[in-house]
Amino acid sequence: MEKIELLYEGKAKKVWKTEDPEFVIIEFKDDATAFDGAKKGKIAGKGEINCAMSTILFEYLESYHVPTHFVRRINATEMLTKKVEIVQVEAVMRNVAAGSLVKRLGFNEGQALDYPIFETYYKHDPLGDPLINEHHAFALGIAKPEEIRTMFRLTAKINAVLRAYFERRGMTLIDFKLEFGRYDSELILADEISPDTCRIWDRKTGRKLDKDRFRFDLGDVEKAYVEVLERIS
Amino acid sequence: MEKIELLYEGKAKKVWKTEDPEFVIIEFKDDATAFDGAKKGKIAGKGEINCAMSTILFEYLESYHVPTHFVRRINATEMLTKKVEIVQVEAVMRNVAAGSLVKRLGFNEGQALDYPIFETYYKHDPLGDPLINEHHAFALGIAKPEEIRTMFRLTAKINAVLRAYFERRGMTLIDFKLEFGRYDSELILADEISPDTCRIWDRKTGRKLDKDRFRFDLGDVEKAYVEVLERIS
Repeated sequence: MEKIELLYEGKAKKVWKTEDPEFVIIEFKDDATAFDGAKKGKIAGKGEINCAMSTILFEYLESYHVPTHFVRRINATEMLTKKVEIVQVEAVMRNVAAGSLVKRLGFNEGQALDYPIFETYYKHDPLGDPLINEHHAFALGIAKPEEIRTMFRLTAKINAVLRAYFERRGMTLIDFKLEFGRYDSELILADEISPDTCRIWDRKTGRKLDKDRFRFDLGDVEKAYVEVLERIS
Repeated sequence: MEKIELLYEGKAKKVWKTEDPEFVIIEFKDDATAFDGAKKGKIAGKGEINCAMSTILFEYLESYHVPTHFVRRINATEMLTKKVEIVQVEAVMRNVAAGSLVKRLGFNEGQALDYPIFETYYKHDPLGDPLINEHHAFALGIAKPEEIRTMFRLTAKINAVLRAYFERRGMTLIDFKLEFGRYDSELILADEISPDTCRIWDRKTGRKLDKDRFRFDLGDVEKAYVEVLERIS
């Protein structure tokens, strides 16, 4: 499959048209942004790490019958995927309080949640990706209630599978963001799963192994990304 | 029933203990606040108007079998109600876009919604009453999923009843906020229904007849409150 034309360039990825209208090539970039693009930088080797990690996790999830857009890895930073229509709703699942749960709702960082919290956000940069519920999604015309329910069901399953997977490798899956796409009148997992889209802490020490190292200038960003990939490979 | 002891003083109401532990007296004040208390003032006669209007609407809703805390009006500004444990979740229903729907989500003010939007907020002044979903409510320990579902069902019914009621009186019920209380292991409607807690626009002219006149210094605040009461009396 050849890259024919750039269809879309996001903050961390490019999407290329191929000769087959059913498939696109996703190219993972080293570019990193945070705080709605207010902070910009590069994380050396990130494109390759995120491509490798997403490959491993998509294949793992497929083995649990989670439908994903993944077809195959093409090279270090590129992946062939099904061409989907991305739902403009980001799905977040949280096992431990961090980030906006601390800032907006007064949870303590690191506080374990008895039940995971599922959230939906309106994927809309100019508005800063605001939290929404299923009624907003429907009124905005971005997702139907049954689609939000499917996203919840799939995200809960993915959480159960990945949480145990990371735990066995000495890491805690604190929270993560997923994107879904419409494909053949079905919702399938799209986008990526990587330290860009997950919070991952070392189980013993609580050391952060994800994009928060970049967001909050904690240092050793590349090292953390490499470490996560090594532990799951 | 006599007022024995002040149990709680809020921004717009006082709650008094009575000789009967099953009942409290709610006293409606003229005090008005907006923007999480950043703006403070008085609206002359508001206590009496809100007490009168809440009485009319609670009685009307009871006639439609909506359970409320209302027992009877005692005098101009006081009401006898069942003593409930207030759920720390505010329920909002929106028929037309205004307020935070415009600011947070990019709707146009006055845009009619094909389907009403139901929202829940964490009743927590220091955090600025943030938007939450049922998963947050459960994790915060403030409401169970089935309570949120009951709040949704009751709020949808109340909206259907009141929307038609206001419409027949030449007004549009843009949106409103409700509070519910636990009483005898059941959720019942509590708090008040007034121009403090509803957005109400004149149907023909779109003139605002609610607390937004106070919030945004639109003038004729008292007049608007009086007008709503007269139209529904």
